[in-house]
Amino acid sequence: MSLVSGPFDGPCIAVIFTSVRTRTDAEGYGETADHMVRLARRQPGFLGVDSARGPDGLGITVAYWRDEESIAAWREHAQHAAARQAGRDRWYEEFAVHVTRVDRSYAFHRPSQAP
Amino acid sequence: MSLVSGPFDGPCIAVIFTSVRTRTDAEGYGETADHMVRLARRQPGFLGVDSARGPDGLGITVAYWRDEESIAAWREHAQHAAARQAGRDRWYEEFAVHVTRVDRSYAFHRPSQAP
Repeated sequence: MSLVSGPFDGPCIAVIFTSVRTRTDAEGYGETADHMVRLARRQPGFLGVDSARGPDGLGITVAYWRDEESIAAWREHAQHAAARQAGRDRWYEEFAVHVTRVDRSYAFHRPSQAP
Repeated sequence: MSLVSGPFDGPCIAVIFTSVRTRTDAEGYGETADHMVRLARRQPGFLGVDSARGPDGLGITVAYWRDEESIAAWREHAQHAAARQAGRDRWYEEFAVHVTRVDRSYAFHRPSQAP
């Protein structure tokens, strides 16, 4: 069982979301972030998501999608649009979004050690 | 002063490195990781880097480069090659690398509040 997303077969778009949180509303933010991941997993064209936030407050989430159509549909999802608005209203000091086409991928898994 | 990388003018390649650490050699890993960031910043074609690792051990680093030539040169840098080998030997349980072309980017900065 892999803990990191990919590599994926076929075309893939990676959306990189890099953010710095405000100190506001940790509980509401956490609940919504978890809900958005659960919701995204059910959207057509969703391939995977990885997320990390360090002790300095900088967070990176990368979501992988099949194509532009699946990204556009997720973007128009009403609950996702409301969450984005709350992010601008109170959760983020700043963020950057990079929409990218995955050109190539590779992965490493440590071999199991003999018992 | 922005804490997150981008948007960048002109072509941009984002290299997404997602990893899970072993529990081995935290000090050596940290020193090398910091050194690699300092070294990368001096390479031709380097545009920026963001990095986060959460309490669950999952980390994401995204490095932004001008073109494939700058990525190839960094890949061949002897100290970087040695660090990658140490990563496979002892630092990572698993990782995935996605090399991507940035198609579009946007950013948000919270307006300064009136005093």
